[in-house]
Amino acid sequence: MELGLIGLGKMGGNMAERLRRAGHKVVGFDFSAEAVQRLNDAGSVGVTTLEDLVKNLQAPRAIWIMVPAGDPVDETIAKLKPMCSQGDIFIDGGNSNYKDTQRRHDELKPQGFEFLDCGTSGGIWGITEGYSMMIGGDDDVVERLRPIFEALAPAPDKGWGRVGPSGSGHFVKMIHNGIEYGMMQSYAEGFSIMKAKKVLGLDLTQISEIWRYGSVVRSWLLDLTADALKKNPELDGLEAYVPDSGEGRWTVYEAIDLNVSAPVITESLIRRLRSREENNFTDRMLAVMRNEFGGHAVKKA
Amino acid sequence: MELGLIGLGKMGGNMAERLRRAGHKVVGFDFSAEAVQRLNDAGSVGVTTLEDLVKNLQAPRAIWIMVPAGDPVDETIAKLKPMCSQGDIFIDGGNSNYKDTQRRHDELKPQGFEFLDCGTSGGIWGITEGYSMMIGGDDDVVERLRPIFEALAPAPDKGWGRVGPSGSGHFVKMIHNGIEYGMMQSYAEGFSIMKAKKVLGLDLTQISEIWRYGSVVRSWLLDLTADALKKNPELDGLEAYVPDSGEGRWTVYEAIDLNVSAPVITESLIRRLRSREENNFTDRMLAVMRNEFGGHAVKKA
Amino acid sequence: MELGLIGLGKMGGNMAERLRRAGHKVVGFDFSAEAVQRLNDAGSVGVTTLEDLVKNLQAPRAIWIMVPAGDPVDETIAKLKPMCSQGDIFIDGGNSNYKDTQRRHDELKPQGFEFLDCGTSGGIWGITEGYSMMIGGDDDVVERLRPIFEALAPAPDKGWGRVGPSGSGHFVKMIHNGIEYGMMQSYAEGFSIMKAKKVLGLDLTQISEIWRYGSVVRSWLLDLTADALKKNPELDGLEAYVPDSGEGRWTVYEAIDLNVSAPVITESLIRRLRSREENNFTDRMLAVMRNEFGGHAVKKA
Amino acid sequence: MELGLIGLGKMGGNMAERLRRAGHKVVGFDFSAEAVQRLNDAGSVGVTTLEDLVKNLQAPRAIWIMVPAGDPVDETIAKLKPMCSQGDIFIDGGNSNYKDTQRRHDELKPQGFEFLDCGTSGGIWGITEGYSMMIGGDDDVVERLRPIFEALAPAPDKGWGRVGPSGSGHFVKMIHNGIEYGMMQSYAEGFSIMKAKKVLGLDLTQISEIWRYGSVVRSWLLDLTADALKKNPELDGLEAYVPDSGEGRWTVYEAIDLNVSAPVITESLIRRLRSREENNFTDRMLAVMRNEFGGHAVKKA
Repeated sequence: MELGLIGLGKMGGNMAERLRRAGHKVVGFDFSAEAVQRLNDAGSVGVTTLEDLVKNLQAPRAIWIMVPAGDPVDETIAKLKPMCSQGDIFIDGGNSNYKDTQRRHDELKPQGFEFLDCGTSGGIWGITEGYSMMIGGDDDVVERLRPIFEALAPAPDKGWGRVGPSGSGHFVKMIHNGIEYGMMQSYAEGFSIMKAKKVLGLDLTQISEIWRYGSVVRSWLLDLTADALKKNPELDGLEAYVPDSGEGRWTVYEAIDLNVSAPVITESLIRRLRSREENNFTDRMLAVMRNEFGGHAVKKA
Repeated sequence: MELGLIGLGKMGGNMAERLRRAGHKVVGFDFSAEAVQRLNDAGSVGVTTLEDLVKNLQAPRAIWIMVPAGDPVDETIAKLKPMCSQGDIFIDGGNSNYKDTQRRHDELKPQGFEFLDCGTSGGIWGITEGYSMMIGGDDDVVERLRPIFEALAPAPDKGWGRVGPSGSGHFVKMIHNGIEYGMMQSYAEGFSIMKAKKVLGLDLTQISEIWRYGSVVRSWLLDLTADALKKNPELDGLEAYVPDSGEGRWTVYEAIDLNVSAPVITESLIRRLRSREENNFTDRMLAVMRNEFGGHAVKKA
Repeated sequence: MELGLIGLGKMGGNMAERLRRAGHKVVGFDFSAEAVQRLNDAGSVGVTTLEDLVKNLQAPRAIWIMVPAGDPVDETIAKLKPMCSQGDIFIDGGNSNYKDTQRRHDELKPQGFEFLDCGTSGGIWGITEGYSMMIGGDDDVVERLRPIFEALAPAPDKGWGRVGPSGSGHFVKMIHNGIEYGMMQSYAEGFSIMKAKKVLGLDLTQISEIWRYGSVVRSWLLDLTADALKKNPELDGLEAYVPDSGEGRWTVYEAIDLNVSAPVITESLIRRLRSREENNFTDRMLAVMRNEFGGHAVKKA
Repeated sequence: MELGLIGLGKMGGNMAERLRRAGHKVVGFDFSAEAVQRLNDAGSVGVTTLEDLVKNLQAPRAIWIMVPAGDPVDETIAKLKPMCSQGDIFIDGGNSNYKDTQRRHDELKPQGFEFLDCGTSGGIWGITEGYSMMIGGDDDVVERLRPIFEALAPAPDKGWGRVGPSGSGHFVKMIHNGIEYGMMQSYAEGFSIMKAKKVLGLDLTQISEIWRYGSVVRSWLLDLTADALKKNPELDGLEAYVPDSGEGRWTVYEAIDLNVSAPVITESLIRRLRSREENNFTDRMLAVMRNEFGGHAVKKA
């Protein structure tokens, strides 16, 4: 079938190609002329305006929006609406906050548009391994897009599903990312302790490789970690700086709002915040307190 | 080749069978007559005394000890030594503390015995999937046992290796289990938040299944979790009670001794401790403090 | 001077009395006839309607609102406005969220009303010890109420001040309460460890009393804790259940929004959430995972 | 009465002076000639050898050892024993691990020496405010030293006591310091959040001063914090580096050994470890994982 695709970045570009290989027609837009060209070169239809995207699709259209969460989603929808027809489907495949998703759905529905949210996991590997998709929205609308989901998924009947009403897809993806934070932190701490045990002279690359087969901690993240260690065993040249893109903190807010204690996901977020604090005021305050009560020396900057 | 195996429980029994299928001769001992009978029925050699175990093996022997960590290991070695010969190898495949392992190695070596530590992961699934093995000890001794490790591993060249001198195997296994605690806690928190979001009516079983394919959080632990949810979607009939068997707390001690901050593994341990606290004194103290300063009501037991 | 006071509960009632003793005229309202009667008996003016409250005060009035955070504050202001005059001052002395405070201030100011926020600490002991007050709002308005603040404070020049523009008072009080959570949790954990060290037979009441004098951890909270332990050394008859009234979770949200890592205040909140979780799903999930991979027994409910 | 005092540093020097002012005779030793001279100048007896210290005291002697925990304590006792007499009392007033204390007591007792452990809190302020002392050991020995404790304490009947058998004093002091870590971290986090809320322009020095009077978080540590902020409001020139001197980590080990969940004290320790990690491997590992699965950019060092 046909799919419009807005945003041909790391995720969107790969998705377009996976769909094309499965025999679907993808009409893709991006602000980057280069990304559009790449799509054309690959045999899909790249366009440089949203008008062209809409014109190149037959109503009722399905348009997958793969842009950064927040205002870009609202702006894209606002531009699309006047060009689109009743019954057209917009799919937000990005990492939007589920509350924004519910608001958008509730605005679009009475205006005659369909709106699905699709939490999309798999990263840059999805092109070959397929994407895990958690979908929220109306059941019949999901069904209309079944061929798309089946093509993007690792297998037609695996790795995707409608998980609930509008917002559910992004909610579940948010939790997915919260778990991801915790898993990443767990591995990273474990490897750090081994690295610090200098007297044993452990080879982290070897150990990550051993654990990939048969161990309780085997996982795809471990596969990637093993790969990263192979390429750079000492993680040289990297700064100890870890961004967070929103879903982790939303997970923490949600846990507290729901009165669920979630210490490990929360602590994983907090440690990312910590990685970005320079000349930490908290620690300077501790140092000065120790000096005040015990006369303990402070380190001068 | 021949292997003596002491301890035919959940792990040992399955290992014996995996070795037998690979063509090795296993002589197994257990205090449970039933476990010994089971081994005999399966076509290996089950014996009811350590004397018989030693007699049924040709020197130089290799004897794998698969008993609970702590005194049982020391007691087993003490009993074996007078019956064994110079050059015999003892392998501790359990979850011993690596410091005990180093002490045992340093005692046995001058007495003419070889001693390997093998952190063994894979749980009850190892019989079919193979075991992940992290081995510490002398290189040439590991080489002598190569056929055994190749048979136990998921594939001859995968999932096992000598990671360093004596103690290294148990050290790495200890860290492995620490990571395992963190991963488990991460998943459990994520699912708990989804469960608490009642308004979306999420189906945890379905979601765990979706995530197994293509998602960033896919792992073997997730496969098992999906399986568990399929069997008991509400986790009915279970008590919220989580034991810990030692490696987690040793990981925490080690991190602190090495001055490595490991908040998530630590918190995962702390939460297990918390799960076993009844009528928590800490919380009662908080309640009474609130009452003291603010006149806030306390809940009577 | 004259002060209207809405809400004669644990905090408000005591504040009225402290003001009366300092020579101020308090006109107090409460929905509880009993609380109003108590105020009259004490020599202040208790009234049973807001109309009477406003009538009993000369313009420009100062009316202190001491009601639960949230809707009650908005409702009280909505009722007061039509009866009040330009230039009247409303003071919100409760634990409102500072964002609500800023919204209220920005609505009231153009309507000709003044609005101060006063984070008020001291609990039920303020009547004798005075209150700590963190005030947000316009400087000149704060100055007009100086006699009130000087009377409520522990000393005219101590324990109170304007800390910034509207909202600042409630912001600082929010942080104050976050710190309070962390301090309470610190003490409670320490006492719990000592209680668990049964072999030493420590007397927690005695220790709390020793620490009150000369130690680094002496504090008012410790004074209260010592008092509570004297009355009930084993904390018998209490449930391990700890409510939270909002400022703690707001502190956590704020820290994350500001990208400040605040693990201890956060963990203190999380532990309160945990104290209210029955049959914890997270822990049941951990138990079932251990069973799945290792065959470890679960505890049946 | 007479007291020998070994170690005239920040704590010991001040204690000597407080005792002298109370009319006791102090014979003090230190490796620093300057510290000895200072003691002589102050009117006590400073000596430069342990032999002179012992000679200047009449048997049965009481010798207070105020040296760094660990080997220095054992070495000091080993040197003293041959010069001392049966019935002499050694008091360890430092921050020894309580297990070492119990061992020392059990060795000394059959040799005819008495041994007390005295957890001593108060820091450099003890000279004027008195010390909080938690004492472990035999009751009659504590009684023999009552005049000393009464002089060192904030008041003869306040701030000190025998809390249990040998080791109890150091155990309780260890917990005291664990609580101290948590309280310090709580304040430091709160002040950090306020500092980050730039839009409100909060004055941390002013706020710390307000809180000192009437607030729930008032404490001696807050008094010191207010003082520190007055001297250096931005904490300029300090490095965000926080040592830990042992009791915090021992508290964490003890909590885990006793199966008591103590997340806040633990996290306070972990944050100190974190403050000393440069180019954190954990965070670099997180960064590289994000890059692997999502193609997210890493920051180059």
